[in-house]
Amino acid sequence: MKGGAHFLVGFVLLALASSFASAYDPSPLQDFCVATKDAKDGVFVNGKFCKDPMLVTANDFSFSGLNIAGNTSNQVGSNVTLLNVDKIPGLNTLGISLARIDFAPYGGLNPPHTHPRATEILIVLEGTLYVGFVTSNPNRLITKVLNAGDVFVFPIGLIHFQFNIGKTNAVAIAALSSQNPGVITIANAVFGSNPPINPDVLTKAFQLDKNVVNYLQKQF
Amino acid sequence: MKGGAHFLVGFVLLALASSFASAYDPSPLQDFCVATKDAKDGVFVNGKFCKDPMLVTANDFSFSGLNIAGNTSNQVGSNVTLLNVDKIPGLNTLGISLARIDFAPYGGLNPPHTHPRATEILIVLEGTLYVGFVTSNPNRLITKVLNAGDVFVFPIGLIHFQFNIGKTNAVAIAALSSQNPGVITIANAVFGSNPPINPDVLTKAFQLDKNVVNYLQKQF
Amino acid sequence: MKGGAHFLVGFVLLALASSFASAYDPSPLQDFCVATKDAKDGVFVNGKFCKDPMLVTANDFSFSGLNIAGNTSNQVGSNVTLLNVDKIPGLNTLGISLARIDFAPYGGLNPPHTHPRATEILIVLEGTLYVGFVTSNPNRLITKVLNAGDVFVFPIGLIHFQFNIGKTNAVAIAALSSQNPGVITIANAVFGSNPPINPDVLTKAFQLDKNVVNYLQKQF
Amino acid sequence: MKGGAHFLVGFVLLALASSFASAYDPSPLQDFCVATKDAKDGVFVNGKFCKDPMLVTANDFSFSGLNIAGNTSNQVGSNVTLLNVDKIPGLNTLGISLARIDFAPYGGLNPPHTHPRATEILIVLEGTLYVGFVTSNPNRLITKVLNAGDVFVFPIGLIHFQFNIGKTNAVAIAALSSQNPGVITIANAVFGSNPPINPDVLTKAFQLDKNVVNYLQKQF
Amino acid sequence: MKGGAHFLVGFVLLALASSFASAYDPSPLQDFCVATKDAKDGVFVNGKFCKDPMLVTANDFSFSGLNIAGNTSNQVGSNVTLLNVDKIPGLNTLGISLARIDFAPYGGLNPPHTHPRATEILIVLEGTLYVGFVTSNPNRLITKVLNAGDVFVFPIGLIHFQFNIGKTNAVAIAALSSQNPGVITIANAVFGSNPPINPDVLTKAFQLDKNVVNYLQKQF
Amino acid sequence: MKGGAHFLVGFVLLALASSFASAYDPSPLQDFCVATKDAKDGVFVNGKFCKDPMLVTANDFSFSGLNIAGNTSNQVGSNVTLLNVDKIPGLNTLGISLARIDFAPYGGLNPPHTHPRATEILIVLEGTLYVGFVTSNPNRLITKVLNAGDVFVFPIGLIHFQFNIGKTNAVAIAALSSQNPGVITIANAVFGSNPPINPDVLTKAFQLDKNVVNYLQKQF
Repeated sequence: MKGGAHFLVGFVLLALASSFASAYDPSPLQDFCVATKDAKDGVFVNGKFCKDPMLVTANDFSFSGLNIAGNTSNQVGSNVTLLNVDKIPGLNTLGISLARIDFAPYGGLNPPHTHPRATEILIVLEGTLYVGFVTSNPNRLITKVLNAGDVFVFPIGLIHFQFNIGKTNAVAIAALSSQNPGVITIANAVFGSNPPINPDVLTKAFQLDKNVVNYLQKQF
Repeated sequence: MKGGAHFLVGFVLLALASSFASAYDPSPLQDFCVATKDAKDGVFVNGKFCKDPMLVTANDFSFSGLNIAGNTSNQVGSNVTLLNVDKIPGLNTLGISLARIDFAPYGGLNPPHTHPRATEILIVLEGTLYVGFVTSNPNRLITKVLNAGDVFVFPIGLIHFQFNIGKTNAVAIAALSSQNPGVITIANAVFGSNPPINPDVLTKAFQLDKNVVNYLQKQF
Repeated sequence: MKGGAHFLVGFVLLALASSFASAYDPSPLQDFCVATKDAKDGVFVNGKFCKDPMLVTANDFSFSGLNIAGNTSNQVGSNVTLLNVDKIPGLNTLGISLARIDFAPYGGLNPPHTHPRATEILIVLEGTLYVGFVTSNPNRLITKVLNAGDVFVFPIGLIHFQFNIGKTNAVAIAALSSQNPGVITIANAVFGSNPPINPDVLTKAFQLDKNVVNYLQKQF
Repeated sequence: MKGGAHFLVGFVLLALASSFASAYDPSPLQDFCVATKDAKDGVFVNGKFCKDPMLVTANDFSFSGLNIAGNTSNQVGSNVTLLNVDKIPGLNTLGISLARIDFAPYGGLNPPHTHPRATEILIVLEGTLYVGFVTSNPNRLITKVLNAGDVFVFPIGLIHFQFNIGKTNAVAIAALSSQNPGVITIANAVFGSNPPINPDVLTKAFQLDKNVVNYLQKQF
Repeated sequence: MKGGAHFLVGFVLLALASSFASAYDPSPLQDFCVATKDAKDGVFVNGKFCKDPMLVTANDFSFSGLNIAGNTSNQVGSNVTLLNVDKIPGLNTLGISLARIDFAPYGGLNPPHTHPRATEILIVLEGTLYVGFVTSNPNRLITKVLNAGDVFVFPIGLIHFQFNIGKTNAVAIAALSSQNPGVITIANAVFGSNPPINPDVLTKAFQLDKNVVNYLQKQF
Repeated sequence: MKGGAHFLVGFVLLALASSFASAYDPSPLQDFCVATKDAKDGVFVNGKFCKDPMLVTANDFSFSGLNIAGNTSNQVGSNVTLLNVDKIPGLNTLGISLARIDFAPYGGLNPPHTHPRATEILIVLEGTLYVGFVTSNPNRLITKVLNAGDVFVFPIGLIHFQFNIGKTNAVAIAALSSQNPGVITIANAVFGSNPPINPDVLTKAFQLDKNVVNYLQKQF
């Protein structure tokens, strides 16, 4: 149970990172609007409040360390480091973000997920990935095997995945068309929500035995 | 097998109907731009080509028959009749659509799905529905039981469902914030894509036995 | 006079409800941004400030009672119950709203109005409505008679109306493509503004006798 | 009758010109997209088809003669020369347009109208104008008297007017936030549509005697 | 040096005024959202916070004095008076602004600049201007000589200029498709930034002798 | 002269590649809208016409070879390989693009430029870059030295540059928030336009001797 909880944390972080599709953010109304800490009293705005532009520095637009490999010692064998507006405050109102994805050899998987607010464009730096997305209706699967230097596009909102089919680590850089693309990892959202979805819903939707649903809801 | 194929058709139609979330469409640049048949030579535009405005009639903005119950004699016990821009050509560029959803008694289900391009607002006309959506991260489930006259909002891009927990038919009207909201029924997209997703991906993502994945891929 | 004032209140509320056209709202930058009370010191934002997402509940996304008929005992014989972001705070940033419109028999009228920020799609649940809108230039009228189950679209910004031509009550549900569509009831805005428009303007614009203008300005 | 028809033509042109409110047009996806003649076979797009960029010239972005006074010898005593995308094809996708408005002395009126797709900002070059707009709800009137060099803003979608209260001609330049702002002159749209609105609707909406409505419908 | 500093101030103000290209601002979510003073504690939003709508007056939407000629006694011989959201608070969320540009005779120049957030449409009131813009790639120059009553469009983001080639003062009114178009005067931004750009960058980019670059960096 | 022409071609290509800032593109109205060849007869749309979705393949969303170094043997010592919608047709309507930038050792420069339609986020893969951008007004310079794994953001529309200050080649990947960000290389656009800008304009704007302007116009 405790191990499961640990796994959940790891998986959720992974899920967060493993997604980054791109949405269509509102335009800026000034050169930039660097995000500041959310105002006190629990009041927020669509996006973020901004710093006084006179106090903005180069550090607000930068981040260091994306050359460091992420830890893929987890159940799915992958790790996503997402630089969205929470990591680079200068991205506020600018409609883009960036991520590094690491994959363990022999099956590291960035599992099926959607980005509700972003298209994703990915470049493989090392390794060999089998990648794909499913169109909304009919559910057509479009896939390709990518090697170093290959680029692929995952349209906004569609379910997609990346899978390391090589014998070495794989590394990719992905850009997403939103300052906060969001990520919904399908298995976690469906079987691992808190509180859990009524098992009768999942039993019928997935045509699974109720025991299998119960088992899955314990896993995630 | 043949039965399975039939079911698939039914389910895909259902899925289509069962979704309708709403996205943020571009603004019109004239009073209206009634959709016409797609131009010959396989050339399309974002959205639709439009009719000569002088030839537009009231019928381009209307549809009859949404008072007729949909057929819920299918595996999930629900039916969606979606009026998007394909059904009402006058919706082109106007950023909205409408649907009727019917649910069979004792468990009619509009299974978990997302609308990549729309928020959905739903009103129950008859019956009792247990409805919910899951936030993107963390995966928090927000649910409510709705009766006749109750209204609920499903934010754009999030996984959501409606489930008839009453003893009678249930009927709802849903509006979606896009002329073409799209629908991704999770179970169908993940286990029923054409061609199928590599089973190793699903085995790892869902932590299922490979036999269960194979079984599911045959179902959808 | 006093009666006139009372009527004005009723009419304004009616007007509010009787409109809900749909605009093109900015996209969300997070899953949702549930509206909170406007901040103190009279400071507002475009749209609304938001609640801490951790404090959001299902009630923020719901409303009960739209099955209850509105009171049509007023001069125009209609009543609009509009669920915009002021009634359902979860609609903030999501670009949609919903309304119920009741019409008295034999002439209940939702008088000519525009929604500056929304297209409207309407479904008749009961009764028979004569509905229409006028294009901007030339001023072409497009009309249709609707019965139960019929759907009609009123494009954003155009003047439109609904009129009960049946012998029974009529009820419609309308969806609007903005969280706050706004409504401008023509007769009220032109003849009932506070303070009143210079009568010379109205006399010339409407080619009416000045006495008629004075009479109208007292009515509204 | 013949005279009435003539007047109608004049008035409609006037109405066209007298409006130019400003909407929120989609962004360009290239430097410019100069409008071309609408494609044959009655097929249009949202906005306009574009010329080959290699064939674009300076003339596509320009217009001459806005220093020439418009003819105000008509029933309302005003004239609008609107330069929208139909007059300057280079405006396509660029979200702005410009107009000159002339007013006859002693009461030249640009009658109450809305622009469904644009905010308007106006500068008075000569003369004295009484201008105003009405908010959507409550119907508050906001007015000001403007002299040469004064600037005023009319928010998108709201009913507004300009009235020459001086003894000389008045001239204004107005900019509008859409390539095709549209204009709905209230009196014309309500009483002069083709075909006419059912008089019962107008009698009830405006609380006018049916004879007055009939009279007005003949005027416009 | 002191003179140079003074000049810089003048030039920067000029640059501010001399630009006003137009961007695509987010849509309003209410009739208007009149800008208020930025909130204390250095917290800002994209655009501006707004006043209580009940406290809004006609003055929030107006400005007086654009009939007064600007002072062109400066190095480039031109002056821009820009009315953006900082000058007319009612422009907030409405996507438009207005400017007056004065040019000294025989060579008054509004030097090459871009507006990152706006298209500009300009009308010449007096004088003769040689105007132009450069496309992004290839760098094609499109120019025209304008006289009183001539109108010209400068597409969003492109480098453009206006030059008085006549013997008299010239005056123009320009409208811009953003509440805050921004202006980047090329020479100032490149050679006059604070702190200065590394001279090696400019030497290589402009293929200039290093002494010339040093000289220029002292000028601006 | 001939050599100059060759250089110009090389430089223009470089300029094209060296830019990729990101704008705010319209949202898709379907899952994707893969760009097709522009229609015959010189007719275009904002963005691109699209292929029949049934004929779309994985190749429409991919590109190979971004692992190959660009040729930096040119006057500025840098090379940009931009993958916009012209290279990856699947990017149409999706609002993002990607580029690889190579820099020669000891001074390879991506010279000062703007992207009229995109913000840029850049990650250094190898080498050491001095990067910066200039705010619009006042012209404040914000710079940083980046090493491998460092990320930096260049806001939409602002002038920016990257300069190799290390002894080795440098390589960066940049993502841009538009399917077609556009690039305006300042020196080329100002001194190398075709036809050239009137030298009197540049002499005054840059406060340069006319001979220097003539020299520069021959260089570019």
